[in-house]
Amino acid sequence: MGKKVFGVDVGGTSVKMGLFTEEGELLEKWEIPTRTEDNGNNILPDIAASIKSRMDAAGLAEEDVAGIGISVPGPVDAQGVIHKCVNLGWGVFDIDKEMRKHIDVPVFAGNDANAAALGEVWKGGGKGCRDVVVVTLGTGVGGGIIVNGKVLTGSIGAGGEIGHIHMFDDESEECGCGNRGCLEQYASATGIARLARRRLEKDNMPSSIRGVSSINAKVVFDAVKEGDRLACEVAEEFGEILGKGLSIIADVTNPEVFVIGGGVSKAGKVVLDYIEKYYTRYVFHGSRDTRFALATLGNDAGIYGSAKLVLDGVERS
Amino acid sequence: MGKKVFGVDVGGTSVKMGLFTEEGELLEKWEIPTRTEDNGNNILPDIAASIKSRMDAAGLAEEDVAGIGISVPGPVDAQGVIHKCVNLGWGVFDIDKEMRKHIDVPVFAGNDANAAALGEVWKGGGKGCRDVVVVTLGTGVGGGIIVNGKVLTGSIGAGGEIGHIHMFDDESEECGCGNRGCLEQYASATGIARLARRRLEKDNMPSSIRGVSSINAKVVFDAVKEGDRLACEVAEEFGEILGKGLSIIADVTNPEVFVIGGGVSKAGKVVLDYIEKYYTRYVFHGSRDTRFALATLGNDAGIYGSAKLVLDGVERS
Repeated sequence: MGKKVFGVDVGGTSVKMGLFTEEGELLEKWEIPTRTEDNGNNILPDIAASIKSRMDAAGLAEEDVAGIGISVPGPVDAQGVIHKCVNLGWGVFDIDKEMRKHIDVPVFAGNDANAAALGEVWKGGGKGCRDVVVVTLGTGVGGGIIVNGKVLTGSIGAGGEIGHIHMFDDESEECGCGNRGCLEQYASATGIARLARRRLEKDNMPSSIRGVSSINAKVVFDAVKEGDRLACEVAEEFGEILGKGLSIIADVTNPEVFVIGGGVSKAGKVVLDYIEKYYTRYVFHGSRDTRFALATLGNDAGIYGSAKLVLDGVERS
Repeated sequence: MGKKVFGVDVGGTSVKMGLFTEEGELLEKWEIPTRTEDNGNNILPDIAASIKSRMDAAGLAEEDVAGIGISVPGPVDAQGVIHKCVNLGWGVFDIDKEMRKHIDVPVFAGNDANAAALGEVWKGGGKGCRDVVVVTLGTGVGGGIIVNGKVLTGSIGAGGEIGHIHMFDDESEECGCGNRGCLEQYASATGIARLARRRLEKDNMPSSIRGVSSINAKVVFDAVKEGDRLACEVAEEFGEILGKGLSIIADVTNPEVFVIGGGVSKAGKVVLDYIEKYYTRYVFHGSRDTRFALATLGNDAGIYGSAKLVLDGVERS
């Protein structure tokens, strides 16, 4: 029997956990609440206790476990040192050292967006590819760049911050990062809703989304599927901005495939079609054959990627 | 005595060659003409003959040579297969296999822009750094992205094509690649000259560069150093476009340093100042501390990088 691996994805409200085989089969998954009070001091002990109880239930000793992979909402350096997770109340510390106080199993940590990307490349929409860009269209726009099978973290862990590439000079509103004209101001779920509201205000074109109390990306793409002209214009605008942005990323990294995930991607292939139309127009010919695929792991991408951190880490050491 | 390494940089008119120690000391360098006639069939035999004659002169046997690194003006895949070099008349072939017909020493090949970048990281402006973007401002804008010490080649060798990232929607002239609004239409030596001509045509502002018969990047930056107002405006425009483009590249790859080389960089630190001014304005805060440095190896970057290809290849195999 091969060893088992735990994949842990620490979010601001819940910790997702999975027990995997070394081949990447997800045997079971569960969640526990994230206790962020008291500077998040309970989070790691809670994780350790939950894992130990599953190990007991499954009859696993510490030597049966190859490791625990933990992805966190913040930067993690190559030595596994966490550099502040504001949402968890965490400062700077060595996560393996902290976890070892509770459970004697090797720990490998990574940033959550990067881990989710690694998960999609391992077992999801980018399976079998070595050079992949995973784009998560959620509240913001997240990115995970996989180069030759490994996450591109960059010199200080700020690689893959594709939501903040500068797209427009004449944007009047500020992005959460303090700049103006960032990609995620237009291509995130929030961004699409904003594009829709702006379009609605422009004139009186009739539209099924006019008068909808809370316009979101789903409302827009549902209307697109019904052929609503105004919604289609919004989708074109979204596709042009994101397609152009991704063309630039491809000129730099030349991926085999873009994997598109996050809430917006739930609208399905229509989202890819709008992006690809403009991507092809703007990209350098060397990356014109890059494919577009939907993410397939959904909320489990993080636990898959965290488990993969263990396997890559064990292989490296 | 450690082994020796040959670094070879094949250009369209001449082949630059260097003999190195394994520590990267350049012992001697020389050039031979590139014979592109007859589908470039003489180029590799010429290189082999030249290397053999140097080996004889230096009393080196084949076992004293760790390998020959060859950089070529075209894509090279991870297996050392050349995928067409239009300027040389070359098609698709395995360069190690071809060279072994003439000399029994391992051959490692790479793309010339990437090799030059590797050279600058090894012994030039990016020395000591693991994550570097080398930007060559010559006739075009070339790029070499170094991630964790290795060249990012991308899935089909089209990584680092930063000269063709899309910067402007309303460009009327076509770039050599067939698109419109590529970075190199503004930030290359040719691009700067074009910005200057456009600025001169705009109005009658007096300028020392007005009436100069062949305006080039040197003319513009010489005038900038003299305080010429129109030339300074051109430099601002250049700096804004390139600084914005590099900010996007940093958001994706988070380098420790940008190394700026090529003919334009000969104007010196003033070039970096104009780029940095705008880079800082547009980049995501995670990459705000990325440094800018001038390339230091000049035309030798290619032979240094080619030699490094050998050392990296030998280490890998």
